[in-house]
Amino acid sequence: MTITITAFERSPDGGKGLARDTRVRWALEEAGLPYEVRLVSFTGMKEPAHLAVHPFGQIPTYEEGDLALFETGAIVFHIAERHPALLPTEPDARARAITWMFAALSSVEPPVLDLQTAKFAEGDKSWAQERMPLVFDRIRARLSQLADRLGDAEWLDGKFSAGDLLMVSVLLRLRMSGILDEFPTLAAYVARGEARPAYQRAFAAQLAVNAPATS
Amino acid sequence: MTITITAFERSPDGGKGLARDTRVRWALEEAGLPYEVRLVSFTGMKEPAHLAVHPFGQIPTYEEGDLALFETGAIVFHIAERHPALLPTEPDARARAITWMFAALSSVEPPVLDLQTAKFAEGDKSWAQERMPLVFDRIRARLSQLADRLGDAEWLDGKFSAGDLLMVSVLLRLRMSGILDEFPTLAAYVARGEARPAYQRAFAAQLAVNAPATS
Repeated sequence: MTITITAFERSPDGGKGLARDTRVRWALEEAGLPYEVRLVSFTGMKEPAHLAVHPFGQIPTYEEGDLALFETGAIVFHIAERHPALLPTEPDARARAITWMFAALSSVEPPVLDLQTAKFAEGDKSWAQERMPLVFDRIRARLSQLADRLGDAEWLDGKFSAGDLLMVSVLLRLRMSGILDEFPTLAAYVARGEARPAYQRAFAAQLAVNAPATS
Repeated sequence: MTITITAFERSPDGGKGLARDTRVRWALEEAGLPYEVRLVSFTGMKEPAHLAVHPFGQIPTYEEGDLALFETGAIVFHIAERHPALLPTEPDARARAITWMFAALSSVEPPVLDLQTAKFAEGDKSWAQERMPLVFDRIRARLSQLADRLGDAEWLDGKFSAGDLLMVSVLLRLRMSGILDEFPTLAAYVARGEARPAYQRAFAAQLAVNAPATS
C-alpha cells in the first residue's frame, strides 16, 4: 500500500529541515520505505479535509490504506515498530528505545519549543529580552542532564534507534541558537545523526520542496 | 516479577493527584497489576542512584526485574502494550490509540506546562501578569481543537485507551485554572476518566502518601 505523508507547501524555515515532516521522512528512509508527499498550505491545514486527519491542523500526517495517523512521534513509532533498523527486537532494549522517543518529545522538546515561542510569538513583547535568559537556562539544564547520560557513547542506548532519530531532530532545532555548541558531546551526537545516509536523503527531499534549485 | 515505581516522598500538589506517578498508578490499576512504590525526596531525586534510572532526576520510574524505565509515556505504553484494557489489539485502532498518547504529551501538555512555568517559575517576574493571557490563549487554542475532535464521543477513539488515560491526566492539570470549564465536553470527558474505578484507586493510593489521614 502506498504511504502518503503531508508536509508544508512552503516550510517556515525555508528548507533547514526543522519542520516535522523531516523526522518522518528520515524514519521512512531508515526503514527503506518509499513514500509520497502531499503538500499543504497554511490555509489548507486549517480546512476540514486536513483537520479530519490532523485535529490540530498541522503536518505531518501519515496515510496508508485505511489508516490515517497524525503526531510525529506516533508516526515514527508506527514505522519503527515494523522495521528493526529503528527499534531493537529484544524486549528490554525495545522498551528503552521507546523511552528515548518519549524523552525526546516530552522532556527535551518542551523547553526547546519555549524558545521558539519566546522568539517568534513573543519576540516583540516588552519582556522578550529580559525573559530570554530564563528560557535558555531551562534548555541548558535539560541538555546538561542529557549530556551526562550520553557520556561518550555513540547513541543513547546501544545501536541507533527511533529514540536517537527523534532526539537528534529535537536538538537540531537548537543549532541556530548556538546553545548546542556549549555541549560538545551533544553537538557531535547530532552531527552523527546528520551524517547518516537516510538523514541526508530526508533532508535533500525536504530541501527540494522548500528551496528548489533555480535554473 | 515485582513492579516497583517511584513517586514523590511529598508531592508538590499536596495530594491532588497531579504528579506523574498517578498516571502510572492508573495504568497499573486498569491492567490489574500489583505494584510497589519507592518514595523519593527532592534531594534524593538528584543523587546518582536515582539519576542512574532517571537521567532527568524526576519521578516516576518503573523497575521490573532487569528492566528500568523512565518517562511516564513510555512506562504507560509498556504497561498498555501488555494489556488489552489499555490498547486495542486491532492494528489500526492500536496505532490510533498510540497517536493519542503522543498527542496528549507532545501537543496538549506543552502549553499546559507553560502555564505552570508562568505561575511557579516566573510568577514573581515583572511580566507575569501581562504575559498570562497569551499563555491561556495558547491553551484555549489547543483545547478548542481537541473539543472539536472529541465532539460528543465518550472517548477519543472508540473504547477507553491509554490515549484517554494520558489525555485526561494532562487536562486534569488545568482544573484549578478554571479554563476547563470553558469547554464543557472536555470537562465531562475528564469527569468520565476520574469516575473510573481504576483512577479512583490510583488517586487514593497517591493521596495516602501525600495527605495521610490523621488519627
